[in-house]
Amino acid sequence: MSDIKRVVLAYSGGLDTSVIAKWLEVERGLEVVTFTADLGQGDEIEPAREKARAMGIPDKHIFIEDLREEFVRDFVFPMMRANARYEGDYLLGTSIARPLISKRLVDIARKTNADAIAHGATGKGNDQVRFELSAYALAPDIAVIAPWREWDLTSRTALIAWAEEHQIAVPKDKRGESPFSTDANLLHTSSEGKVLEDPWEETPDYVYSRTANPEDAPDTPEYITIDFETGDGTALNGEAMSPATLLAALNDLGRKHGIGRLDLVENRFVGMKSRGMYETPGGEIYAQAHRGIEQLTLDRGAAHLKDELMPRYAELVYNGLWFSPEREMLQAAIDHSQQDVTGTVRLKLYKGRADVVGRKSPKSLYSEAHVTFEDDAGAYDQKDAEGFIKLNALRLRLLAKRRGT
Amino acid sequence: MSDIKRVVLAYSGGLDTSVIAKWLEVERGLEVVTFTADLGQGDEIEPAREKARAMGIPDKHIFIEDLREEFVRDFVFPMMRANARYEGDYLLGTSIARPLISKRLVDIARKTNADAIAHGATGKGNDQVRFELSAYALAPDIAVIAPWREWDLTSRTALIAWAEEHQIAVPKDKRGESPFSTDANLLHTSSEGKVLEDPWEETPDYVYSRTANPEDAPDTPEYITIDFETGDGTALNGEAMSPATLLAALNDLGRKHGIGRLDLVENRFVGMKSRGMYETPGGEIYAQAHRGIEQLTLDRGAAHLKDELMPRYAELVYNGLWFSPEREMLQAAIDHSQQDVTGTVRLKLYKGRADVVGRKSPKSLYSEAHVTFEDDAGAYDQKDAEGFIKLNALRLRLLAKRRGT
Amino acid sequence: MSDIKRVVLAYSGGLDTSVIAKWLEVERGLEVVTFTADLGQGDEIEPAREKARAMGIPDKHIFIEDLREEFVRDFVFPMMRANARYEGDYLLGTSIARPLISKRLVDIARKTNADAIAHGATGKGNDQVRFELSAYALAPDIAVIAPWREWDLTSRTALIAWAEEHQIAVPKDKRGESPFSTDANLLHTSSEGKVLEDPWEETPDYVYSRTANPEDAPDTPEYITIDFETGDGTALNGEAMSPATLLAALNDLGRKHGIGRLDLVENRFVGMKSRGMYETPGGEIYAQAHRGIEQLTLDRGAAHLKDELMPRYAELVYNGLWFSPEREMLQAAIDHSQQDVTGTVRLKLYKGRADVVGRKSPKSLYSEAHVTFEDDAGAYDQKDAEGFIKLNALRLRLLAKRRGT
Amino acid sequence: MSDIKRVVLAYSGGLDTSVIAKWLEVERGLEVVTFTADLGQGDEIEPAREKARAMGIPDKHIFIEDLREEFVRDFVFPMMRANARYEGDYLLGTSIARPLISKRLVDIARKTNADAIAHGATGKGNDQVRFELSAYALAPDIAVIAPWREWDLTSRTALIAWAEEHQIAVPKDKRGESPFSTDANLLHTSSEGKVLEDPWEETPDYVYSRTANPEDAPDTPEYITIDFETGDGTALNGEAMSPATLLAALNDLGRKHGIGRLDLVENRFVGMKSRGMYETPGGEIYAQAHRGIEQLTLDRGAAHLKDELMPRYAELVYNGLWFSPEREMLQAAIDHSQQDVTGTVRLKLYKGRADVVGRKSPKSLYSEAHVTFEDDAGAYDQKDAEGFIKLNALRLRLLAKRRGT
Repeated sequence: MSDIKRVVLAYSGGLDTSVIAKWLEVERGLEVVTFTADLGQGDEIEPAREKARAMGIPDKHIFIEDLREEFVRDFVFPMMRANARYEGDYLLGTSIARPLISKRLVDIARKTNADAIAHGATGKGNDQVRFELSAYALAPDIAVIAPWREWDLTSRTALIAWAEEHQIAVPKDKRGESPFSTDANLLHTSSEGKVLEDPWEETPDYVYSRTANPEDAPDTPEYITIDFETGDGTALNGEAMSPATLLAALNDLGRKHGIGRLDLVENRFVGMKSRGMYETPGGEIYAQAHRGIEQLTLDRGAAHLKDELMPRYAELVYNGLWFSPEREMLQAAIDHSQQDVTGTVRLKLYKGRADVVGRKSPKSLYSEAHVTFEDDAGAYDQKDAEGFIKLNALRLRLLAKRRGT
Repeated sequence: MSDIKRVVLAYSGGLDTSVIAKWLEVERGLEVVTFTADLGQGDEIEPAREKARAMGIPDKHIFIEDLREEFVRDFVFPMMRANARYEGDYLLGTSIARPLISKRLVDIARKTNADAIAHGATGKGNDQVRFELSAYALAPDIAVIAPWREWDLTSRTALIAWAEEHQIAVPKDKRGESPFSTDANLLHTSSEGKVLEDPWEETPDYVYSRTANPEDAPDTPEYITIDFETGDGTALNGEAMSPATLLAALNDLGRKHGIGRLDLVENRFVGMKSRGMYETPGGEIYAQAHRGIEQLTLDRGAAHLKDELMPRYAELVYNGLWFSPEREMLQAAIDHSQQDVTGTVRLKLYKGRADVVGRKSPKSLYSEAHVTFEDDAGAYDQKDAEGFIKLNALRLRLLAKRRGT
Repeated sequence: MSDIKRVVLAYSGGLDTSVIAKWLEVERGLEVVTFTADLGQGDEIEPAREKARAMGIPDKHIFIEDLREEFVRDFVFPMMRANARYEGDYLLGTSIARPLISKRLVDIARKTNADAIAHGATGKGNDQVRFELSAYALAPDIAVIAPWREWDLTSRTALIAWAEEHQIAVPKDKRGESPFSTDANLLHTSSEGKVLEDPWEETPDYVYSRTANPEDAPDTPEYITIDFETGDGTALNGEAMSPATLLAALNDLGRKHGIGRLDLVENRFVGMKSRGMYETPGGEIYAQAHRGIEQLTLDRGAAHLKDELMPRYAELVYNGLWFSPEREMLQAAIDHSQQDVTGTVRLKLYKGRADVVGRKSPKSLYSEAHVTFEDDAGAYDQKDAEGFIKLNALRLRLLAKRRGT
Repeated sequence: MSDIKRVVLAYSGGLDTSVIAKWLEVERGLEVVTFTADLGQGDEIEPAREKARAMGIPDKHIFIEDLREEFVRDFVFPMMRANARYEGDYLLGTSIARPLISKRLVDIARKTNADAIAHGATGKGNDQVRFELSAYALAPDIAVIAPWREWDLTSRTALIAWAEEHQIAVPKDKRGESPFSTDANLLHTSSEGKVLEDPWEETPDYVYSRTANPEDAPDTPEYITIDFETGDGTALNGEAMSPATLLAALNDLGRKHGIGRLDLVENRFVGMKSRGMYETPGGEIYAQAHRGIEQLTLDRGAAHLKDELMPRYAELVYNGLWFSPEREMLQAAIDHSQQDVTGTVRLKLYKGRADVVGRKSPKSLYSEAHVTFEDDAGAYDQKDAEGFIKLNALRLRLLAKRRGT
């Protein structure tokens, strides 16, 4: 690591990554390149430019990018095709953003001849793993600096003292301890730590920032439609939208109706359990809708195989293995299944729920002729069922005979 | 089949199975034994005795049993340990009842020296498969008679005409066509067919019989606790209850708060898609609670393996393979995981949702000492993370080097 | 079925399918189109033309095709990429040929305006299922005629009598019962039935037709190399070969060295166990070689995922579900993994064994620098292992603490 | 770690672990307890006692145990029930021994009030992981010392110099470098490193120590029988034997016939590929026999589920996760399947091969009545196959109709 001269830092413009930027310069003697991305977290990103300049970083080493469309199109939507939920529930909102950030860090490192990247994730969490596995998978010889695993600024007080000592502006609201820690992007907001650390205590309502409390949501349901083409959402209420635009519009609807709150105790890749609170308003609506259109257009064999592969896929994304051969293999299988996942889903939004109430498709595999209780005009011969059952039963009967029953 | 003399019929006391009873006697020349079970479907079962007598069946051949505790304890709860949901959603309320009915049909056949069983399921659905696979697995040489696959009473009119011709009382409300078909037991009510056959049309509210419309449910949330011991629910709000009593009490709560409605297009084992409406009020609450206590008490390795096995388990139950070696193998694995799934879950019930808001357990694996953002007193050494990431990254770096990146 | 006028028959030219051809004409009143394929079974196919003519079939309705290259390139090789072995052993030689035959039957049916296909498989085996599922998947409205399930020619004597009655030449060696039943193509020969029916009795040596008895094979080992590109074999001993040529050359080598004999009791899709004898001389060598090159070029994540998916893939092929969405999904995943499966494998052939003894590749992921017991010049930091183990152990330690150990 | 006073060392009596024992005392100031186990590695273990004494270790701190029966009964046999092979081939001979050694190390640590264990595995391999994960799973607060990851004796010369400096006897044959590294126990011998490091070079014959070269093996096959009860081997050629006795006897047979050699490039848990040579003479025979008896006695559903779970099971054992909830869950499923795996397998041993040639069982599921080509007296109705195929085809036909074919 002693040969490192220049480092690209994932820089939010906030206090913590400002301290890291300065620390990398002062304590490690490195030239710092900052990278600030708009992933839909809701904060302005332009202020990060001024803050970086204020620390003496030259303009050519300040990178600010709007990645919202790439994020949704190339990361969120492919993951949604898999119906991925980690441990049955979590829509992977933080996990799915990290590979994209690492990809850009690595790209900028190459462009600026930097030999390292740095991030502000702690040594206890999953994000360090996600950042670093992604970076190594894209640039095997890059160095990674994770100041939180190295420095001794382990208390809030120490951090703020160090910041003031090094002329970093400390906003007033950062002086006290935050009652919890958050991450946000276009897909979700997560909160963990502090007031959330006792899993028996209900999450206080003030922790939620992106969704109405269902009790305060409208008393009247709202109906919407989402159109899908080959597995991806393309329109809301009949109006065509780009991926990021669609997700943003669904976020507005989800916020209004209190949809997508999740209180979870989950298993981290690093081996411990943690308790998190997630808000994924648009993502929850989208996920329900995607399953709705699959119900009509996916064959049973494809659908069941997808269901069996999903937990593994979700685990890979959660663990930071987006850029791994096995995630890509699963994606190839999943994407193959989506070629006819086309049609329209109708949902009812009401007080925290997004329920599929209708689906139609030019690619529907639902055959009213086959399923009807009425006369089916010969579409299906009920007598076939006897042979079907008999042969499926054969091995069970042989087993029973062995038992002597 | 020509040697069959006596048949045990799954008899509800309703019009259809009354016609079947008479048809088996008249058209097939068989002695009919009736079996009527209380699985919590909500109808009285004693009237079936009089109806059977009215058809001339001797008392010793009329069997009426309350199976509610056995149903919940030996079928519903083991399935819930697996967190089973077919195609991601369906809690398998109909599927899980069929093996128990077949088990009793076979037992009674042995007791009465009957050589066949009969059921009233049609040739298009899954229930015929479930009844028959279960029966063959328990009694390999038993014969099965499925009149709906054999007779020519294929229209409602024909059925009613035949009933009247054979002195079977036809209730007035059965004269018209039912607008949909239903099945019910302590776990759920399902409806399908007729008005539900167009999957684009929202299920009309009158189809629901067991749950309040969420819009009409109380405006104030209700909080409850459920206690679990070794994977099974044992108490509601601190009050110990038997399995069936607990599920019934949860059904009351679910009904009140509009919980457990599901509108699904699913893939039948016999190869077609169908659209069903399910109400599983208590089951939905219970399922959420079970996952909640597992979050705290299951190790990651066990939890993820369970998640990966679940779709297969659910498929087996759905397909009628409860009495199969592979379902039993999966159950052995799942049950092994449940030995410390003990503790209390707190849920908030509100307008169609049952959300876990707290969990605690004497067997908790959650370690606040490890996860805390505060000083952890050495419980976890953040420096370990670097080696962890480095070795997990090694193969990815070798891959990247091969690509020449 | 009453509207069927013309049927395409999978016609070998042998006695059984000749009887079927005539039976379809005489008993069912159909115009018969014959299709005879060279899949490398080792018999001449041209004689089938004369036999078909002799039964009065017009030349335009006699189809004879050499499908060897298509068979190996589009069916055998893709399956070998998956390392597919049914029930751990069987290389699926019969299973993989059926979809191709059905594909051509359907194509010819369209070309000749036939409305049905027919095959000579019995009602007890897997082949009927494979033929028919493939046909229905390609032509949903085609009719399938399976005379063995319908006619009453259920004994050899009855069949021969019917043949003679209808002027079909009966070769002398067909007058007695064959001591077992066989199927053959470029990949394998299978035998089952009769003398093989007692699974305790060793398969008599005369059953084997394609491989030397290992005891009679050369006493000196022979070394060969096979080259692979992107997962498929391309050369033997440095000489480039087409897929079918390569497999044929490996068959010669395998025959000489007694490689690829398999005695198996397997589970049929139709529910019973059967005992089969298989000879897959070239296929066994090829399968070993493919795993050999994968050892060097596949990443662990990809390799383990492939191993986990393989049994399902093999089951699908065995069950006749080649043309199913789920087989195609798995194939997409598998093919994705093969893009760097390129290099050379060296094998030693000796008395029934084909052992990989060396492998090299421009795409190798094996890093002598990392693995060496010698000084590795910093490629790997052994201290990283401690953190790796510590974090992998964390959940196990929390479990142990819960147990109070 | 500074509080550690006493350490239990896995001590072979060889040079390396003698140096470690002394190093722990001299450099780390610890009291050393030695543990030497007979796992069937073939060396005498009693000499280790004198060597430990010679280093000044008191008798009460010298533990020497014969673990052969426990090893085979509680580790090898349960693993064989799973048919476990890592990456398709490796019978896990080293992997399966480590958990038992760790279990005893931990037991002895408790008995002697030691607070740490130590082992002689390097920082590049899997064994360190297996030792340590097992130890942590059994004793979460134990410390582990792995001198090879810590000291600077990284060359053979340095190690020998240190040994001589500290009065440790250095056998003459240890002065030069060994041409490869080995591990052995009753199940197998493994070799890796040095002359084996180029995966293109054939393993020299002198590396093999436990099996005849097949070319030198007898020219006449030998037939044997193995009896199984509920999944475990109980007799050879009709003679009842304890687990370890049976495996030892099979080792003799395998040695004679050159069975169980394996040349493999495998993926280590720590992220790199390595090339190993394994000899598992008795294990290979046993593994073939176990599959042979399963063919006859396992139902298809159980067999296929086992095949799908096997790669995961093998990976867990390989990675050192024997004492994990998920391995135990899989074991529960597997063991459930073995209750009728009882019977006799006949094998032919010849020049490197162990082929199943016959199997019989009082629990056989093979039904000659069903499978026969002869008249089956109504055991199976071929007409059932039509309905079976039709319903299995239904979804494929609906798919084809969607495509418009």
